[in-house]
Amino acid sequence: MNKSIVRFVLGSVLKVEGILLLLPAVTGLIYFEKEGLAYLIVGAIATLLGLLLTIKKPTDTVFYLKEGCVTTALSWILMSLVGCLPFIITGEIPHFVNALFETVSGFTTTGASILSTVESLSHASLMWRSFTHWIGGMGVLVFLLAIIPLSGGSNINLMRAESPGPSVGKLAPRMKETARNLYTIYFALTLLEFILLVCSQMPIFDAICTSFGTAGTGGFGIKDTSIGGYTVQIQWIVTVFMILFGVNFNAYYFLLARQFKKAWELEEVKEYFAIILIAIVIIAFNILSLCENVFDAITQASFQVASIITTTGFSTANFDTWPGLSKTIIVLLMFVGACAGSTGGGIKVSRIAIGFKSFVRESFYYIHPKSVRKVKVDGRPVDSGMIHSVNIYFMTFIWIFVISIIIISIDGMDLVTNFTAVAATINNIGPGLEQVGPIQNFARFSDLSKCVLMFDMLAGRLELYPLLLLLHPLMWKDVYDHRRHRFSTWRRNRIMERQKKKNS
Amino acid sequence: MNKSIVRFVLGSVLKVEGILLLLPAVTGLIYFEKEGLAYLIVGAIATLLGLLLTIKKPTDTVFYLKEGCVTTALSWILMSLVGCLPFIITGEIPHFVNALFETVSGFTTTGASILSTVESLSHASLMWRSFTHWIGGMGVLVFLLAIIPLSGGSNINLMRAESPGPSVGKLAPRMKETARNLYTIYFALTLLEFILLVCSQMPIFDAICTSFGTAGTGGFGIKDTSIGGYTVQIQWIVTVFMILFGVNFNAYYFLLARQFKKAWELEEVKEYFAIILIAIVIIAFNILSLCENVFDAITQASFQVASIITTTGFSTANFDTWPGLSKTIIVLLMFVGACAGSTGGGIKVSRIAIGFKSFVRESFYYIHPKSVRKVKVDGRPVDSGMIHSVNIYFMTFIWIFVISIIIISIDGMDLVTNFTAVAATINNIGPGLEQVGPIQNFARFSDLSKCVLMFDMLAGRLELYPLLLLLHPLMWKDVYDHRRHRFSTWRRNRIMERQKKKNS
Repeated sequence: MNKSIVRFVLGSVLKVEGILLLLPAVTGLIYFEKEGLAYLIVGAIATLLGLLLTIKKPTDTVFYLKEGCVTTALSWILMSLVGCLPFIITGEIPHFVNALFETVSGFTTTGASILSTVESLSHASLMWRSFTHWIGGMGVLVFLLAIIPLSGGSNINLMRAESPGPSVGKLAPRMKETARNLYTIYFALTLLEFILLVCSQMPIFDAICTSFGTAGTGGFGIKDTSIGGYTVQIQWIVTVFMILFGVNFNAYYFLLARQFKKAWELEEVKEYFAIILIAIVIIAFNILSLCENVFDAITQASFQVASIITTTGFSTANFDTWPGLSKTIIVLLMFVGACAGSTGGGIKVSRIAIGFKSFVRESFYYIHPKSVRKVKVDGRPVDSGMIHSVNIYFMTFIWIFVISIIIISIDGMDLVTNFTAVAATINNIGPGLEQVGPIQNFARFSDLSKCVLMFDMLAGRLELYPLLLLLHPLMWKDVYDHRRHRFSTWRRNRIMERQKKKNS
Repeated sequence: MNKSIVRFVLGSVLKVEGILLLLPAVTGLIYFEKEGLAYLIVGAIATLLGLLLTIKKPTDTVFYLKEGCVTTALSWILMSLVGCLPFIITGEIPHFVNALFETVSGFTTTGASILSTVESLSHASLMWRSFTHWIGGMGVLVFLLAIIPLSGGSNINLMRAESPGPSVGKLAPRMKETARNLYTIYFALTLLEFILLVCSQMPIFDAICTSFGTAGTGGFGIKDTSIGGYTVQIQWIVTVFMILFGVNFNAYYFLLARQFKKAWELEEVKEYFAIILIAIVIIAFNILSLCENVFDAITQASFQVASIITTTGFSTANFDTWPGLSKTIIVLLMFVGACAGSTGGGIKVSRIAIGFKSFVRESFYYIHPKSVRKVKVDGRPVDSGMIHSVNIYFMTFIWIFVISIIIISIDGMDLVTNFTAVAATINNIGPGLEQVGPIQNFARFSDLSKCVLMFDMLAGRLELYPLLLLLHPLMWKDVYDHRRHRFSTWRRNRIMERQKKKNS
């Protein structure tokens, strides 16, 4: 393995995080809070450490998929370890596992909290919680790709490991441009939401935090009632932006590039909107008797559907009290998730669609054994490797899910709590049902369970494999073998070259 | 499609069922119950109808997989429709959907009941309920294969559609012998259990019914307390036989043929016993505080684990009151199911094993993209078609599961009830948790939900595809096209043959 590049990237991540920690520090300064100091100190140390790690430039800037995976997984763990320190130093979340849980939940844009009340936190900490969502939403490595000079096209492997969805669409010929385009769209949309929220008379601080939470599809609120305490107008703005941030960013890129036909051809986006519409209609109808009027039912249904399918996790209603059908749909939407290439989590609409199509194809195959019927996406046939990898993704997902549930069920909580706790973390949503419902929190779990849930959050955000690979003993053995092999090949080639020169 | 053979098989099924209905009729006679008459009448009508349908021999006795699927699905539906009539005529289950539910539950060896009490039923009906398990356990078509003369090797397609598991092992060169061998082992094991139960001072009637229920891994009890009211010795006998009937019958065949090495090589059987052992140990440890002593804990854990993994569904304890970890394991075991080639339901140990192995292989592939690492079962590599079909099986299973849950959640029951009701029916277990727990029943569901659950039971018993195909519009269109095509090919070939003769 190319250790120097891993070191360099990790160092860069630390530098960036150090700088990003300035935002909560400044917030603390504005509100005259001593908590701001903790952020300043941690930020300074992180930057310093980062500088030390990046003094020596990497000897080789080529990334293989394997290295991309390891670097990504390690970056996210490092970021979380550093990011949780201010919570401990300020004493707002004194217990280390809890602080780490909150930070992992932030960066992975899950929004599952161990706090029973958030209104007692300092402005600095509230800002940092919401900001972690924004950082994690688009991914810090994508950000790095936009600013640091990593050579070659092979660093698509870095991006592939961090980006959500079965395939990374290259929005521009060069990765650097792609990353910049993504961040530009991301930043612009966040800014737009902020402006609209402020125009709807939301306080500026609240508007910043809410915009961060929406953009990253995170879900940490700054009020105990989440978004429920704000006006209906604000709720609708948040609803619309949650849905927008769940759209495949390729669509925005195509729209900006005036390639309307290409944007329209994105099948996943159409399926995404169709699912949202159907779910809102069914739920609004189902909860009508619980609401004041039809508009109220539609408002509540839309907000919750948008919040769950985009895996944001904001809430305006306690859907744990809804009737069975609505709850079932909510639980199913948890797994569907947003579009690939968005900031949302979950299995992703495109994977669900490919899974469904290959299931339909199979029943055709049973009837017509000799027919060749290809699964198509966006009008083009999908190669069998992609279908295979989607099937394997499902299998891996199920295994992680099952093993997680077994471990956390040791705590003795009920089945719905265990099931939805794992569902809400591996899909990066936040709230589940029962003991982890919208007005509950994750504090009641044991430290072991919290670690499992943290693993699930990271696995969910990084699309399972990078994190699984990090645990795989063969990975490390192989890294060693592979390097030795590469070195011997390189030496043999050099010897041969020399002989050639001698001969000629 | 070869309609004459389908007609002939359906007629034979009716004839067989008519004769089988004599058992409850005789039971009624012995106990001087007028209910026996209902069974006699239905039996006579079924036999008569069967005779009418089988007067004309089929013109062509060749079976294709498609026809095998359709015939199997139709046979099971017909059997259930006829089998539910006595319940209605005797007035013991007057509502048609309920009576059909009870019968489908019987034939599919599910054991889910809509009755709140079974002790008020006549002996004739109790016998018929348990007997349907025994008939459904090994499959009536397998029975037909053993007795009626269907030509050629192609009727393996009939057996394949009815037999549980990813592959049908041919136990003998000819299907007829295989079917006979299966039924001989099945009958002998049932008899053995009956004798042991009678020796343990169980009343003869109870022993017959319990043996039928165990052999078919069904689960209908004849007492409201299921097996809980009997002695510990009887509970242990039932436990052991439940486990034995969940073993791949190939193992018994090999043992009888003194091919001990081959029997030992059956990986699935070893995995099956390993899972049972681990589950018993964990649960016994977990419920220790609820039990009188260690032996009681082991007895209860063993019985419930055996009952759930073999998808029998007898109970001696209300596991709905067990702690979270035990309940989680019980729910997971519901999906694992018994061995392929046994009378048990569920996904089957071999499928779970292949799924797990292909997941492990995939993570190797991620690290060694060029390595060729085959999934092996019983020491032999599994071809990719099998792995693909297992993956597709999982996908199909998930889709049927999700759609079923959505429909039955309209009734407004809680999530655990809905989830476990579908799990308990599609895996042919019987009891679930909460509203469908071991001491509850399925009567509270609407007729629509009951129909969905009946579909799930049949789909689970017939391994999903036969029933799905029956619903597929293309199936019927294609059956027509295919036949036309076959006829024209046949005509062309004949013309060519004649010309050849002329030429020579």
